[in-house]
Amino acid sequence: MYIDTQKARCFCEDVFKAYGFSADESKIIADVILLADLYGIDSHGVHRLIRYHDEITSGQVDINAKIETVHETPISACLEANKAMGQLSGVYAMNMAIQKAKTSGCGMITVRNSNHYGIASYYTQMASAQDLIGVSMTNTEAICVPTFGSEAMTGTNAQALAMPADPFTFSYDASTTVVPRGKLEVYRKNGQPLPDNWALDANGNPCYDAAIVVDNIIAKAGGGIAPLGGLGTLHGGHKGYGLSIIVDMFSAVFSSGLTSNHVNRKPGSTGICHYFMVIDYGIFGSKTSIREGMSKFLQEIRDSRKAEGYERIYTHGEKESELMAQRKNGQIPVNEKTLEEMKNIASALNINSELLC
Amino acid sequence: MYIDTQKARCFCEDVFKAYGFSADESKIIADVILLADLYGIDSHGVHRLIRYHDEITSGQVDINAKIETVHETPISACLEANKAMGQLSGVYAMNMAIQKAKTSGCGMITVRNSNHYGIASYYTQMASAQDLIGVSMTNTEAICVPTFGSEAMTGTNAQALAMPADPFTFSYDASTTVVPRGKLEVYRKNGQPLPDNWALDANGNPCYDAAIVVDNIIAKAGGGIAPLGGLGTLHGGHKGYGLSIIVDMFSAVFSSGLTSNHVNRKPGSTGICHYFMVIDYGIFGSKTSIREGMSKFLQEIRDSRKAEGYERIYTHGEKESELMAQRKNGQIPVNEKTLEEMKNIASALNINSELLC
Repeated sequence: MYIDTQKARCFCEDVFKAYGFSADESKIIADVILLADLYGIDSHGVHRLIRYHDEITSGQVDINAKIETVHETPISACLEANKAMGQLSGVYAMNMAIQKAKTSGCGMITVRNSNHYGIASYYTQMASAQDLIGVSMTNTEAICVPTFGSEAMTGTNAQALAMPADPFTFSYDASTTVVPRGKLEVYRKNGQPLPDNWALDANGNPCYDAAIVVDNIIAKAGGGIAPLGGLGTLHGGHKGYGLSIIVDMFSAVFSSGLTSNHVNRKPGSTGICHYFMVIDYGIFGSKTSIREGMSKFLQEIRDSRKAEGYERIYTHGEKESELMAQRKNGQIPVNEKTLEEMKNIASALNINSELLC
Repeated sequence: MYIDTQKARCFCEDVFKAYGFSADESKIIADVILLADLYGIDSHGVHRLIRYHDEITSGQVDINAKIETVHETPISACLEANKAMGQLSGVYAMNMAIQKAKTSGCGMITVRNSNHYGIASYYTQMASAQDLIGVSMTNTEAICVPTFGSEAMTGTNAQALAMPADPFTFSYDASTTVVPRGKLEVYRKNGQPLPDNWALDANGNPCYDAAIVVDNIIAKAGGGIAPLGGLGTLHGGHKGYGLSIIVDMFSAVFSSGLTSNHVNRKPGSTGICHYFMVIDYGIFGSKTSIREGMSKFLQEIRDSRKAEGYERIYTHGEKESELMAQRKNGQIPVNEKTLEEMKNIASALNINSELLC
């Protein structure tokens, strides 16, 4: 099932205005959500509206939140988001990082007490669109089990980095877990056994039953998802585990906020934390020649010999860029359940959902 | 077989002085090499002396190299190492990054045309010893095959980060491949089949024969090691592949040096590139409370529930710190082949190797 991209955007803006956000704020939030659908990261697009709805109506998100600067230097700041909508904290902080990078060569902003901010690469592309390097990280509720552990202590903890290049900006955006939770939910729905090295049961043993893992995660009953690199150390699981700690360090420890293992543990707030960094790569030399160097390296990789049975090697951001070109003035896919949720939200808020049909 | 740590250190210093390095330079190089042995990263300790010997005697390393600053700002620099010994470029650049961080809050140094610099965490601990965050990355000869490719395009491409904490500094140091090449050599020696998702043959198909993979790597005949996350995308191989590009970006693209796929392709120089970043985490708030926050988070992870059959969860740097305490004033392990190589080096340089026995 497909809906028109422009109509989906208008619908999102109407929804957020109905909660009480300003027209400008609603535009920002809708833009972050829609970019996920344009990039093909459907889990973070309109599919997630129902969760934002719950977070806003339950008071975990404060629609009137004012973001405060707690500490600031010419190259850095620590922000208290006061339960703001994650997209608003994110855009605010990234704009601040961009300004600092333009003045001082680099800007690093850590943000505490925010909320789910959508796709990490929304923020990195804000920087790359201005010919700067953007970095963005966020912690989440704990879902990732440390090597040799049986209890989730870190989150999906995405890391994103964008560096301008031609014809495709290099845009890396990945969780530090082997897979995000959404993948497990797909396996559960299809009744398929999980692949090796994806997940653990409550005792920390390998688990192939998606239903057990997802139910345990929801009940906080133990177990969870393996870090990138899988279970134990044979395939480098200790590396993904370390990367997930690094994300919590930049976002939660530096902002004196809540680390993943404390996120979403109390009613009334999630406590999610973010980190943003912008570097003007001109601090290393000629921007023209560095950008050409990046483009050349990526092209050499795309042009390198393919594995038997494969016709193409992608660099990061290439697929998303192609999909966006298709979907931007066209349509985005939604499943039946998401469409129904969108209609229920419209009806709860007393807004028009006819344009979705 | 074990040799006395102090004797090994004196031996290394004698060896580098014999090549023509100054006493101070030899002390630095020996210190970097020995720290690998103290940390238990044997592949980068005295075991690697024979390769440094070959690189120095063949002229890939210039013992008289002067490191030049090509571009500089208050928070950054780009250095031309002119084929300096990697340890000397590394310590020089890290000291520069530390000075910039002390003055400006952060320092980022990219280095081109250097050589193998030993363990990445040597440099990060230089920063953490001064209560600063240290980051260090290096590219290497290409050994890692991009997702859907059959030709190595990026290197082992280690990433290291150290953040002060009590009682153990958090010290992450890991290749962005699923394993380093040394692991394959151990499997070859033992005649064991390689685990799944470690390596590819020249056609980009999974390969379980370490001899084929290692021989192909040496002959640059195709294939190589999988990125962290393994082959294809099922376990996140595209993530490790992206991380390896990021290391080449910071080290080689920003320094206008050689990316991994061009490293060690011409006689006379390797062209290896590095990146160093130091952040004074006081730019985000009170250092005391941030350091306490990091220590508390790591302790919560170590104290979290263990998987069935495991008694301990480690945080990164903990094992190395314990091993160093044991070995520092004691002994380091060496295998017979390494000892023989050390004696051969001594005899080629006409220095005393009796102290090793």
